[in-house]
Parts: sequence; structure tokens; C-alpha cells
Amino acid sequence: MVIAKARAVDGPDKRFRAAEIKRRDLDLHDVLIEIKYAGICHSDIHTAHGEWGPVNYPLVPGHEIAGIVTDIGAEVTKYKVGDRVGVGCMVDSCGECENCRKGEEQYCLKGNIQTYAGVDKYGEPTQGGYSTHIVVQEDFVLRIPDGIELADAAPLLCAGITTFSPLNHWNAGPGKKVAVVGMGGLGHMAVQIAHAMGAEVTVLSQTLKKKEDGLELGADYYYATSNPGTFGKLAGTFDLIINTVSAKINMDAYLGLLTLDGTLVNVGAPAEPLSLNVFNLIGHRRSFAGSMIGGIRETQEMLDFCAKHSIVPKIEVISADQIDEAYDRVLASDVKYRFVIDIGTM
Amino acid sequence: MVIAKARAVDGPDKRFRAAEIKRRDLDLHDVLIEIKYAGICHSDIHTAHGEWGPVNYPLVPGHEIAGIVTDIGAEVTKYKVGDRVGVGCMVDSCGECENCRKGEEQYCLKGNIQTYAGVDKYGEPTQGGYSTHIVVQEDFVLRIPDGIELADAAPLLCAGITTFSPLNHWNAGPGKKVAVVGMGGLGHMAVQIAHAMGAEVTVLSQTLKKKEDGLELGADYYYATSNPGTFGKLAGTFDLIINTVSAKINMDAYLGLLTLDGTLVNVGAPAEPLSLNVFNLIGHRRSFAGSMIGGIRETQEMLDFCAKHSIVPKIEVISADQIDEAYDRVLASDVKYRFVIDIGTM
Repeated sequence: MVIAKARAVDGPDKRFRAAEIKRRDLDLHDVLIEIKYAGICHSDIHTAHGEWGPVNYPLVPGHEIAGIVTDIGAEVTKYKVGDRVGVGCMVDSCGECENCRKGEEQYCLKGNIQTYAGVDKYGEPTQGGYSTHIVVQEDFVLRIPDGIELADAAPLLCAGITTFSPLNHWNAGPGKKVAVVGMGGLGHMAVQIAHAMGAEVTVLSQTLKKKEDGLELGADYYYATSNPGTFGKLAGTFDLIINTVSAKINMDAYLGLLTLDGTLVNVGAPAEPLSLNVFNLIGHRRSFAGSMIGGIRETQEMLDFCAKHSIVPKIEVISADQIDEAYDRVLASDVKYRFVIDIGTM
Repeated sequence: MVIAKARAVDGPDKRFRAAEIKRRDLDLHDVLIEIKYAGICHSDIHTAHGEWGPVNYPLVPGHEIAGIVTDIGAEVTKYKVGDRVGVGCMVDSCGECENCRKGEEQYCLKGNIQTYAGVDKYGEPTQGGYSTHIVVQEDFVLRIPDGIELADAAPLLCAGITTFSPLNHWNAGPGKKVAVVGMGGLGHMAVQIAHAMGAEVTVLSQTLKKKEDGLELGADYYYATSNPGTFGKLAGTFDLIINTVSAKINMDAYLGLLTLDGTLVNVGAPAEPLSLNVFNLIGHRRSFAGSMIGGIRETQEMLDFCAKHSIVPKIEVISADQIDEAYDRVLASDVKYRFVIDIGTM
């Protein structure tokens, strides 16, 4: 058993504190990872604050994990000590249901085991990447390609795959017009990935504040949604819209931007229901869809794709003592574009 | 110019009266059709009652039209006098936009010309099939296969294509589980078509009153949605749900019935917005889509498909004097499953 140093939170209104957590002894197919970097995802904040349902505190968040293998179980075949690896939002799934057998473990019918705030197959609560070590079954460990720095790799494990998967599934590519709604942690990845896939990319952001970054990352066009003229100008334009904004938006306005057979995919979910006018779908055979991270195989594809196309997140590396401050800044939209904790400071 | 006998309505609260309407002289590519039968679609009622926006009365509804060609324009090549033909919801479109060029005239970007309550390219109001004759550009005329009686053909031109098109587009077929919500004019066509395409078909109707009919038409299963246990039992089951009900339904309950990558397609649109919980889409990469009739080429495919598989609507033939009564009965859901006006009684 390894005692890992961690940062934990004890309740919805609490600040982070130093903690120690136990990582289980290696089972036959387990990998022990020394974590080097962990990204801060908005989901961490929602969960830490108890906004997505009851949480068993203390909680150690973090599902954008990059590190080095330091030990392996007796029957591990995929990884060896010294390998550069990552862990994303899941650490296990049933492996037997229809969806798991398709490699879509994120949609496991029995419910996959989340990296934190879940309960593993040993009945123990899972704790995430704001810690020095983690033990994960090898099938849920990703290989980080040599071309990607570990600090850069971390956000790919959630922000990267969350946007890569729908772009891949709905065939973003040459000849396709893709809009990305929101230019934050997810949006700035979606822009790069869609551009590398060959699509024409438009950012739809509240303001033009980040326009320069958007264009630099590969956007062909950049519009402010606070300008009401934007919606008229772009009506019926896009084959695919990736909505990275979790807040409630005017769905009808955005659906109106889709072309015939276009699809708007939400990768975030507002807490309240969304309402829409069905005529907006019927009149152009449009679809409103949702997508959640990606399967393990697809996550590896995403990492390899990012390495091949030199896609990295824009990050701000912080120390373990700055997590609370980083949370406050995420909530104030004051981050370009992802905080990554240097676990060496823990 | 032909003077046609018709049944017209003069306002949202008026009853039908006998009328005479002018049908234009044949342009080069026009076909004159002597109408034999016209179906009564719920859209006729919505439009006649002014529920879908302002209408220029007097109005002659009817977009499920079957008849015989009695004259042709000088350059008509597709039809000759004596041919058995049909006309659906559109009589023209721009022919030049991206969607028209794809054969998806129903989604014409300039707006196709509706069979009634529209304005044609000569600036004249269009009047529909509750009349003895109609003049239509040959490209918007369908050929009725020999195997289908004219009275049976009429409802195919709207109810048939409205359900065939999404079943075709979303690949209903062997190995697919399709649910049809609502067992009315559209639903009873969807059941037959999905069954003939090779899908496993389930009807979801408020009650089990029409279960016998549903099974006879090809449904494999039939459930009452008034039984709350239905939604738990069928959770995550269907690849495709065709929702033929225009009334506001509990979207979240129905979306919950879709499997991974499943799609719920609305072919009717409630007047008020629908609300849904986006987690319901994200958790299983589900889609909520809409579909509107079908293109002309696909409508011909549908007619040929119905002839090949001996698919016909269940109809109740009425005389021209019974239109008001039929409207009342449609609104009371007292029709199995489509009223068809015998235009010979006009």
C-alpha cells in the first residue's frame, strides 16, 4: 500500500487542505503511477461544491492526470516502469455490457467507475489526481506520446477527449463547417482539434476578447454572440456545432445556425432543463445531441492525434497551494485556458 | 383555365362550403389532374383553424391528392393523359438552392411552395386537394404504382412520406429496434413501413385500445404509455423513436428509452417549446431530431416501396359533405386511421 500526499476538501464550502490517502496494493493488472501533473476541470469544482449531487467527503478531485509508471502488478502487459502515462475520467467499467464491448466504456450500462467521487470494485471510494500517486487497472491507463509534455498532456485526458470524441463521431473534416461555442478550457481544444481534422472552424464566444487566441489556434472565423447580428448572419451555416458552455443558452438561436442535417452537440449540461422549439429541428432535419468524454481506445487515438498535429492546451501551471485561488479564477472565467497543478509542489 | 369545384372555408371558426376555384392554364411543364381522392391530414385542420399563423381565406385545404392526368403542357415529358398520379405537400420549390439540388425540396432554402395556403410563382394563392382539379408542375407530381388504389394512395402523399423519410434516413432495418409513438394516421403508417424495412417495431400508445390493429399492421410489441411501468421496462431499448404526436410530451421519459447513439425524431411539432434535461442526451450520446415530409424523389421511392410491400393506410372514405364532421372526429381521435374524401361526391 502506498500513502499518497493529496489535497482534499471536506465539504461544499470548504477550502483545500493537505491530506494523506491510501492507494491500494497492486492487483494483478494494476499500475502504480507517480502523478506529475493534474489539470483542474470545471467538473472538479461542481463536484467539490456538491452541485452534482451528494459527495462523500473528504474528496480529492482530479481526472486529468499525467505521470510515470513506478510499479506494475504481476500480470500487467501494457505498461512497464518508467512509461509516461495518463488517466482520465474513468478508472474502470463492467467490461461486459454492450457498450463496453464496443469500446465505449464511458457509456457503460452498469455505470463506469469515475476517477474520483466513485466507488471502486473493492468497495472503496475513488480519489483523484490532486495527489502524488494513483493505482489504476492497466486497461484504463493511457500512453502519453513522446511529443507531448506531461503538463500539457493532463488537460487532454478530459478537455481533449470531450471535444475530440464528438468531432470524430460526427465527422468533422474537410468540407465541414464546425462552430465551437465557448472559448474556454474545452473550446480552445475543440478549435485546435477541428482545425487539425480539416474542418472550417468558427468560434462563437460571448465577446471578442479572446479572438486573437482563437485565430492563432486555428479558427477561421470568430464571432461575438453578444452581437445579435451574429445569429442572423450565420443562420443555416454549420454542419456541426460543439457547445462547450454548460450555462443555459438560447437553444433556438443556436439551432438556427445549423444547416440541413446539421447537429448541435452539447458536451456540457446545464443543471436546469433546456427548452427548444421543435420547428427548429423539423424545418431542416436538425439534431440536438449530447456527448460525454470518450472511450479508452478513442482517448488513445486522441492523444496520438494531438501528438501528430502538435496540439497542446494553453495552460497555467500552479502549485498545490493555489488550488482554491484557481477555483475562484475558473468561476470568474479568469483562466487561459486550463490550470494544471504541479504535483511536485504537494 | 379550368373552373374546379371545391370545398372552402372562410375563417378559423367557419364550416366548409361549396366553392369554385380557378386552376391556371397549363404552362409548358404543367399537368392537369382530375382529383379522385383527397386525404384529410391534421395539418389541414391546424391551417384551416388559423392555428399555424394567419391564413388568406377562403382556403381549400388538402395535400394528400390522388387522381388522373387529363391534360399536359406542351413540354411535359414525365406524364401523359390517363396516368395515375399524386400530389403531396409541395407543388414547387426554387430548384436552385443547395437543398433542392440534393433532391430535398422539402427543405428548400427559399421556401418551397405549399400545396395550399402558399403563393405560387405566378403570385396566386395555392389551393389544395379538396377540389375536382389541380394544375401542378410535372416535377412535383408523383406516379402512383398500379398496385395501389387511388383512395389508398392519397394518405401516402403526406402520412406515408412523413414517416418513411425518417425511417429511411435513420436506417430503420434488420437488427434495429424502432418505436413509434402514437397510433394515429402517421403512426399506423410508420408501423407498417418500419416492419417492411425489417426493423423490430414497438408501438407506444396512450392506451392498448388499438393494440390489435398495431400487431396486425406489423408491430412486434405494443405498450401503453399511460402505464408508468412502461418507461422503466423499456429504458435504453430503442435505436430509433418516431414521435408522431404533436402534443407536448415528457421528452425526458421518451429520450430515456433510447439506446447508445439512439435518435428520437419528431415529425410533429407542438406549438409550445419542449423542455428536456441535457444529461439525458449526454449520458448515452442520444440525439433529438426533427424531420419534415420528404423530397420528391424519396416520395416516389416511398410509393414504390409501399406497392412492393402491399402497404396501404386504413382509411374511411367520406363524401364532400362530411368534411366538417370528419374534422370534429379527428380532433376527438375518432378515426381509424385516415379520412379520405371521395372527390366524385363534390
